[in-house]
Amino acid sequence: MNPSPALMVRMVLTAWETQHKRTTKVFDSLSDEQLLKEIAPGRNRGVYLLGHLTAVNDNLFKLFGLGEPSLPTFYDQFVKEADQPEAALPPIATLRKQWTDTGAALLKAMNTLTPEQWFDRHTAVSAEDFAREPHRNKLNVLMTRITHEGYHHGQLILLQPKEQA
Amino acid sequence: MNPSPALMVRMVLTAWETQHKRTTKVFDSLSDEQLLKEIAPGRNRGVYLLGHLTAVNDNLFKLFGLGEPSLPTFYDQFVKEADQPEAALPPIATLRKQWTDTGAALLKAMNTLTPEQWFDRHTAVSAEDFAREPHRNKLNVLMTRITHEGYHHGQLILLQPKEQA
Repeated sequence: MNPSPALMVRMVLTAWETQHKRTTKVFDSLSDEQLLKEIAPGRNRGVYLLGHLTAVNDNLFKLFGLGEPSLPTFYDQFVKEADQPEAALPPIATLRKQWTDTGAALLKAMNTLTPEQWFDRHTAVSAEDFAREPHRNKLNVLMTRITHEGYHHGQLILLQPKEQA
Repeated sequence: MNPSPALMVRMVLTAWETQHKRTTKVFDSLSDEQLLKEIAPGRNRGVYLLGHLTAVNDNLFKLFGLGEPSLPTFYDQFVKEADQPEAALPPIATLRKQWTDTGAALLKAMNTLTPEQWFDRHTAVSAEDFAREPHRNKLNVLMTRITHEGYHHGQLILLQPKEQA
């Protein structure tokens, strides 16, 4: 039994799709009013996490060498900046569409990468560092993003009424 | 560039260790009193999640063919059964020790598996099903457990006071 790189890539991409579908299901289950609530007193609002996860996904295009972010202001607004309830956000309907569109475009773009490209370095690591640390490849980045989305998924379900969860 | 199975295994095991350390750090940061609180009104208490994640880790011994669970009653109590605030739980100090001991023993046992064993089927899938679905291997199970632990990690930090988080 000699596992191929293609099998490993398929395992991680499938895990990504599974997590992405779960997170989408939670966003779809929440009303705009519920998304405007904080996941716990003084913590991020659901709407901020919607923008945050979209920003993190959009940023993967650049990290994977698949193009430039479609939402160039999002990384500053939803990753570098914390949630500020008084700050103006895009309309929730727009954010929902951006979540869906970014997720679909990312999956399509990722499916064009070959196993060799997945195991090659991501754009934020130098060739020298990569020679010493070959685990710093694109596939490893995607694995961390699955866990990151799972982390916020665990928080977002708290916005659902208990009987709905 | 031809990634070896050993590199893929190392990527996932490193991700597991990273997530496990993060979760441990949150448990260590929380007092017994904080662990007795619910992560949100009507949801699981921190102490239940401490037992739950220990039970899930303990169950991996069997799934990976590494031995029997050390805490055979935990799966029923902390996975099959939901949190019931009136139910008697082990003392929190005991649960904390079981978390630490199970995590250390699991890591040690997992480090004895060869890459070939990681890419072989887990004990809950038949040889016939595995022939059709080669992604149903041990490494894939561990990937799902990383995401699962990340999910509850995102909830547990809500028990920290905001300024501590």
